[in-house]
Formats: sequence, structure tokens, C-alpha cells
Amino acid sequence: MVNTEQNGDVPIPVIGFDHVAIAVPDLEVAMKFYGEKFGCEISKPFIVGTQNIRMAYVYLGNAKLELMEPMGEGSPISKFLERNPQGGIHHICLKVPDVEAAAEGASQAGLRRLGGDKLAEGHEGQDLFFMHPKDTLGTLIEIE
Amino acid sequence: MVNTEQNGDVPIPVIGFDHVAIAVPDLEVAMKFYGEKFGCEISKPFIVGTQNIRMAYVYLGNAKLELMEPMGEGSPISKFLERNPQGGIHHICLKVPDVEAAAEGASQAGLRRLGGDKLAEGHEGQDLFFMHPKDTLGTLIEIE
Repeated sequence: MVNTEQNGDVPIPVIGFDHVAIAVPDLEVAMKFYGEKFGCEISKPFIVGTQNIRMAYVYLGNAKLELMEPMGEGSPISKFLERNPQGGIHHICLKVPDVEAAAEGASQAGLRRLGGDKLAEGHEGQDLFFMHPKDTLGTLIEIE
Repeated sequence: MVNTEQNGDVPIPVIGFDHVAIAVPDLEVAMKFYGEKFGCEISKPFIVGTQNIRMAYVYLGNAKLELMEPMGEGSPISKFLERNPQGGIHHICLKVPDVEAAAEGASQAGLRRLGGDKLAEGHEGQDLFFMHPKDTLGTLIEIE
């Protein structure tokens, strides 16, 4: 009862932390850096065609880093790297049990979603959306 | 045997993700935001006098966010907020089993530590250090 009421009041009920995304100018250099300096397990690189990026995961046990390299000028990461040529932290991703309900909750709470009403699709087919950082205290937040 | 050899090769053997730190211009507004919009449990605010900041934790289960508000001009967060008045992601913190050994490993691997050779002290008395973001692909990384 208490939980139901609480969830009803919370627009985007977060149940965990998924990843920090880090933009990098050279994916292989970044994969080598996290593997060699920190001893982390790294995924194989893969392409997310819908976003024009190449990515790899750095596994940290309880969470992961997402290394992102832009592919060409059309990528949303390209502009970030123009401002931060060395790379840098791009966004965080929080987990919810129901992305569709969370997206509805975000809209009702006045948190604008990037890319319009339709949910985006991650490289594993999962639903996700980003909120406008002006509505989230300057932090770009992905919900997955 | 394999682990020992592996650890011997890795300058900063990371065993987990601790937190993402987010700089905010108003701590109470940020605490309210994460509590109300995402339903997260939030710590009481506390002061870290050595760094001239006020902080609060946002608990996410497997990891946490660290909300940081500068106290006066002397805070390292003040300059960040001059460039990002709304706030934004400031650094990530990774966990190691032995901070002193990791600090030594960082130096030997050519990763400069901020604030000199001495380890810094967190608000709970724990040892920690930061590495120069120019040596870590533009991402400010804390080791704790």
C-alpha cells in the first residue's frame, strides 16, 4: 500500500544505476586505458547505427562505463568532443522498471524528453529516453 | 596465482563503482529534485570543510550520486559552476581495495595526482585521491 502510493507520486521511479557514458575521441585508446590502468574487463566494440556511434562497455561489477566514439559529423557526440577534444563525461543512465510509464511520468512532471515523444531504441532493442538537461539541473540523464 | 600476477600488472586495480559527483548551485533544490522526481532516498546534507563544499548523497541501490554545492569562492566546485551555472556532472569515483597502493601505482603509471603526494581525506576519514583529467582522457576520476 505504502509502496503503491509512493510510486504513484513519483514520476520516474528509479530502481538503480546503470552506467556513466564517457565520450572519447578514439575508442581503442580508451579501451586500452581502462583495461591496462584499472584492470577492467572491456566488451568488444560495437556500432550503434541509429546514433552514429561506436561503443564499448567497461565492466565494474556493480555498474559500467559506456565509452562512446562518434562516427562522422552526424553524431550527437561530435559536438560534445568539439567542446571537449580530450573527451569527458557525457551522461548518466538510471534504471526504471517500466520505461514507457517513466516517459509518461517525465512529460507530466514537465521534464522534456529529447527526440520527441517516441521512445528511442538501444543497441540491444531496449526502450530508452533522454531528458533535456535544462530540466534536470544541467545533467544529461538517460532512463532505461 | 593468476590474480596476484594480474594485480601486479595493473597500477590501479578497480573493484567497483562508487559514485558520480554532480555539482549543483543549490543543494536543497537538487535534493528535492532527486527525491521527488525519481523517488530516491537522500542523505542529510553535510559539510566537507576541507573542500569547502556542502554535500548530500542520492542512494540508488547499487551506487550513489554525490550532490555538491560550493561554499564560497575557495571551493574547487565554484569554477566548475562558473562554466556550468546550472550544474553538471563533475567526476566519477572508482573503488580500489588499497588506496595507498593505487596512489603509488598511479604515479608509476604516469598518471598525475591532484594536490600532491599526500592522500586526501574524505568526510568519513577515508583515504582518496584524484587524478589529473589530462592524464585520464578528460574525465576527472577519484579513487577511494
